[in-house]
Amino acid sequence: MASRLAILTRHLTAAVDDEPKISFRPQDITRLLVHDNYDLRQDVYKFISEDPLYRQNHYLGLMEFREQTLQRLQKFTQQHFFSVRDYSRDPRKFMAAIESLMYCDYSLSIKAGVHFTLCGGTICKLGTKKHHDLYLDRLDDLSLTGSFSMTELGHGSNVMGIETTALYDHSTREFIINTPTNQASKYWIGGTGQHGKLTAVFAQLTVNGKWEGPHVFMVRIRDDNMHVTPGVRIQDLGPKMGLNGVDNGQLWFHNVRVPRDAMLDAFSSVDDEGVFRSSIPSVSQRFATMVGGLTTGRLLIAQGAIDAMKLGVTIALRYSCQRPQFGDKIIMSYLTHRDRLLPILANAYALHLAMGSLKNILDRKQAQDAKVIHVLSSGIKAAATWWRVEGLQACRECCGGQGFLSANQIGPLATDMNVDVTFEGDNTVLMQQVARALLDDKRLISSTPTAPSGFGSGAISLDKLSQLLGYQEHALTYQVGSSMKAAAASKSTEGRAAAEQAANDVVEAELDTVVAMGWAHIQRFCLDNLQQTISKAEEKLVAPLRMLATLFGIKCILRSSAFFLGAGVLSQSDCLLLRSSLHGIYATLSADGGRLAHLLCEGFGIPEPLITAPIAKDWKLMGANGI
Amino acid sequence: MASRLAILTRHLTAAVDDEPKISFRPQDITRLLVHDNYDLRQDVYKFISEDPLYRQNHYLGLMEFREQTLQRLQKFTQQHFFSVRDYSRDPRKFMAAIESLMYCDYSLSIKAGVHFTLCGGTICKLGTKKHHDLYLDRLDDLSLTGSFSMTELGHGSNVMGIETTALYDHSTREFIINTPTNQASKYWIGGTGQHGKLTAVFAQLTVNGKWEGPHVFMVRIRDDNMHVTPGVRIQDLGPKMGLNGVDNGQLWFHNVRVPRDAMLDAFSSVDDEGVFRSSIPSVSQRFATMVGGLTTGRLLIAQGAIDAMKLGVTIALRYSCQRPQFGDKIIMSYLTHRDRLLPILANAYALHLAMGSLKNILDRKQAQDAKVIHVLSSGIKAAATWWRVEGLQACRECCGGQGFLSANQIGPLATDMNVDVTFEGDNTVLMQQVARALLDDKRLISSTPTAPSGFGSGAISLDKLSQLLGYQEHALTYQVGSSMKAAAASKSTEGRAAAEQAANDVVEAELDTVVAMGWAHIQRFCLDNLQQTISKAEEKLVAPLRMLATLFGIKCILRSSAFFLGAGVLSQSDCLLLRSSLHGIYATLSADGGRLAHLLCEGFGIPEPLITAPIAKDWKLMGANGI
Repeated sequence: MASRLAILTRHLTAAVDDEPKISFRPQDITRLLVHDNYDLRQDVYKFISEDPLYRQNHYLGLMEFREQTLQRLQKFTQQHFFSVRDYSRDPRKFMAAIESLMYCDYSLSIKAGVHFTLCGGTICKLGTKKHHDLYLDRLDDLSLTGSFSMTELGHGSNVMGIETTALYDHSTREFIINTPTNQASKYWIGGTGQHGKLTAVFAQLTVNGKWEGPHVFMVRIRDDNMHVTPGVRIQDLGPKMGLNGVDNGQLWFHNVRVPRDAMLDAFSSVDDEGVFRSSIPSVSQRFATMVGGLTTGRLLIAQGAIDAMKLGVTIALRYSCQRPQFGDKIIMSYLTHRDRLLPILANAYALHLAMGSLKNILDRKQAQDAKVIHVLSSGIKAAATWWRVEGLQACRECCGGQGFLSANQIGPLATDMNVDVTFEGDNTVLMQQVARALLDDKRLISSTPTAPSGFGSGAISLDKLSQLLGYQEHALTYQVGSSMKAAAASKSTEGRAAAEQAANDVVEAELDTVVAMGWAHIQRFCLDNLQQTISKAEEKLVAPLRMLATLFGIKCILRSSAFFLGAGVLSQSDCLLLRSSLHGIYATLSADGGRLAHLLCEGFGIPEPLITAPIAKDWKLMGANGI
Repeated sequence: MASRLAILTRHLTAAVDDEPKISFRPQDITRLLVHDNYDLRQDVYKFISEDPLYRQNHYLGLMEFREQTLQRLQKFTQQHFFSVRDYSRDPRKFMAAIESLMYCDYSLSIKAGVHFTLCGGTICKLGTKKHHDLYLDRLDDLSLTGSFSMTELGHGSNVMGIETTALYDHSTREFIINTPTNQASKYWIGGTGQHGKLTAVFAQLTVNGKWEGPHVFMVRIRDDNMHVTPGVRIQDLGPKMGLNGVDNGQLWFHNVRVPRDAMLDAFSSVDDEGVFRSSIPSVSQRFATMVGGLTTGRLLIAQGAIDAMKLGVTIALRYSCQRPQFGDKIIMSYLTHRDRLLPILANAYALHLAMGSLKNILDRKQAQDAKVIHVLSSGIKAAATWWRVEGLQACRECCGGQGFLSANQIGPLATDMNVDVTFEGDNTVLMQQVARALLDDKRLISSTPTAPSGFGSGAISLDKLSQLLGYQEHALTYQVGSSMKAAAASKSTEGRAAAEQAANDVVEAELDTVVAMGWAHIQRFCLDNLQQTISKAEEKLVAPLRMLATLFGIKCILRSSAFFLGAGVLSQSDCLLLRSSLHGIYATLSADGGRLAHLLCEGFGIPEPLITAPIAKDWKLMGANGI
């Protein structure tokens, strides 16, 4: 019965298609999406699409590909699109230049990111004038190739627990860097396997017998003749699942002595008398400042994942709307195809606009924004990269065998980017950090969540979808928060430590819910952000954006339908109504050979020369040119 | 409230751990899993693990890797582990030998599969003595490298729609093979880009002006000096997302003449008078026979995916049970880790045992089994490869950056195998075929499904889990079937074609449900098959198998919890009970450093020399040996 109703409703909503056509100019959407540095981005795109050095070549062996990536980075830096000094001076410009490289090759993107963002940005942020003078020009012309030695074999997510030591020797005014155990070796260090000369080493500092926590030291690992410096051992980590243009290495330090000035000293320093001084008294706060610089890197990773979704879904949609199977019917006519591809379009828009808002918050440079920046950068990075995994896999599968051909771009993107789910913070850990922030939010844990009503016979509005996602965020947080309180209360007679332990045990036992909280927060944020975008958008963009937002919101809710059904908030007929509305949106986007879906892809503003996939052009001619 | 109950229950079930320990010998499980040819498999494993040619080397460029793969195949065939004649003579031996190669490298596996199974198997099955005499020995010694030209640029899943033509010319007793359009070019043909000499071409046969449907013709594409034969054009398809040891090509035929004997004539032939004769009168039935030979290929793909899950999860579990993060706590202690890895273990067991039963059905060689073989081979292939995608991605992520290192095996497996979801039948299409068979099942569409009761305060039994999965299969089929009937009835006055069209429109509109039906069927089959295995298993294996089956069943139901909640079959507290029971099983499997999980991995019987991943050994020493 309910099922027949759903079919009926779907037939009705499919008729949206017959309504006055939604129409807009893609370039107006592009202007909305490109938050900054439009011309710079176009210049980079033009450069990488015209110079033959940047054409894809998947025939190369590992060592040749690394060499090519280095050459690409060198030629790119020679164009002076930006300077490492923009990391502080004009961060939007800095990010725009590096972001644009993703459309060429992800190895190039990451090699640039390691050198400029992780190494250069760390020097800009944690160093002082003497470091800037000594290093930044040489980073800008790539005469000093930089890297970032934070992660250790035994310590990935737990940076505070790194074991590398820096002992201050006042007799020589030097720090002595050591790798005390094999697990303390610096691991995965991008750019050190073959090409790196300089690295920013995170090490536990001891001055005058007192441990001062992790600090950063600039260490030369190869001299100007590319000989490994004394006391340093480097092992090339070799082939990876992808991203093989980047030479990752493992590093050991044995009594490596560096001068007192090698320590980046914007926040801590050792004075002429050998006394440690810091503007940040607590070790943990100091540590937070040291790793705070990772935010830019995290934003770049998230943006890369979002841009990859844009490119992947553009290619997959072009092919799916042209490709027939079993007669004349194009594969995009199939519901299963629509249901795999069209949500990617909505996810890319939602996340891209959320990133824009996050970048605006960063621009304000307000100390009180630190927490929201941490939460959003963590959560958006995790959501963007997980949806990227799912989205590119769907794109690849929806193109059949063609999705597996390197020339069609989706395959290399998917394998090269697979690292993004665990680097700059493992996604599961990042989602927990989002959840921890929610659990600190009094509004969410003190007030009982009020369930919105179901849809009944009412229409599906964005406000209602937003209320539902807000309810989910609130209810999950309240549920875990209440269990934590109850557990802590039950142990209150045993002292504070026991109570805290009990509350923490709840978090561990509810870790699946905790990750779901992170997702709920980001999905709710994205939908609210879309609504705000719509409220400020030009009139002619309102209809397409509203359609994307509705698709996004419905899909988020249906992904969690077990939650909403279990909580008694939605009924089965509500879910069927959502499903039929979703299918109606799919029909509208897919009508006329996917006219609206194509316009929305065009809105991404990816320059045509960077869409090289033959299946995105006239697939029927593939191979024919060689005749 | 319900949530607290769940936590309480979980604490209780977690205590399973304190009960008398489950204990068993892994080799007893291995004996249960290895259905046949134990010694042969060991011989192949020994060969590929001892000969240095088979050591992984991910430094190679594309052309070098192809050359290496060819050399590996040559040396492998020189060992005479099996003959292509075993395809008919001893299919279990045939499959066992090829299956074993997956543990070395998937490119080798697929190159062998294309040559022996697709080309050799087709000759065995569709050819007659003259073809066997002419080709089989030369396939066995690889002097004639074979391939299988079925797929065309424009026709993947729709093989019946291929456009390549074979016109019989009685004046010369030859067939003339042509590629009438670019879309009719043979595409993705493994082994033809560089190395292939012989190919089995599927073409639409016309004799005496009458179209007789697709038939298979043996065509030389390169002569013994490796020159491309006249009228044939070959284009190398170049780099792919993975599997780069296989040289895929695109082929065009221009008036290529082959003798009358080139047609594989076990079921159809052209006689001396130039008259077409066939033991199968209908074109569509003849076609079904022609492509029936794909079943073995589909089984090999499914088995490869299952074996990859075994290897991946073994590596990921070994690392996760050794690797601490944030202090001494191993990462396997985290619920999120357990919930990602342990279901893979259960999926691998469930699917492997289901494959065993399917192979037993094949052994019977009964004509009436054709349908069940088609349904199971399609559904198990789709489920195995989709779970393989999800499972290997989870393994890779759960190992953090290490999962991205090629040496750790998971990454190369995941990328090389990504093709399996769309080849030998696209998974979405295969699941629809399973569903179509369910919709033909009178029992499922005629009787109203009876919902089993929820768990209430009762225990979770395998019978109950099986009833729930059976209910889902029945209810989804009944729902779609009833809608089809109603739609057809509403058009009955407009004639049979209109009624059929209306029913078909329902299937199209419900395609997401149709795919869910395929999943429901395979999950139910796997669980019932597990129960049958348990009922026949040695006493000491009952406890571990029962635990795996329970894990498998609960996870299947929780994946569909929206269905069960929406249908009113399970309540939220039922779902919480299932969740807490699942977490209890996780705790048992993870206790004592993952003792039981490790034993179950050992039960897979993967020889230790083929588990080369450093993280599966002592990860703390990684890189240290080079000192």
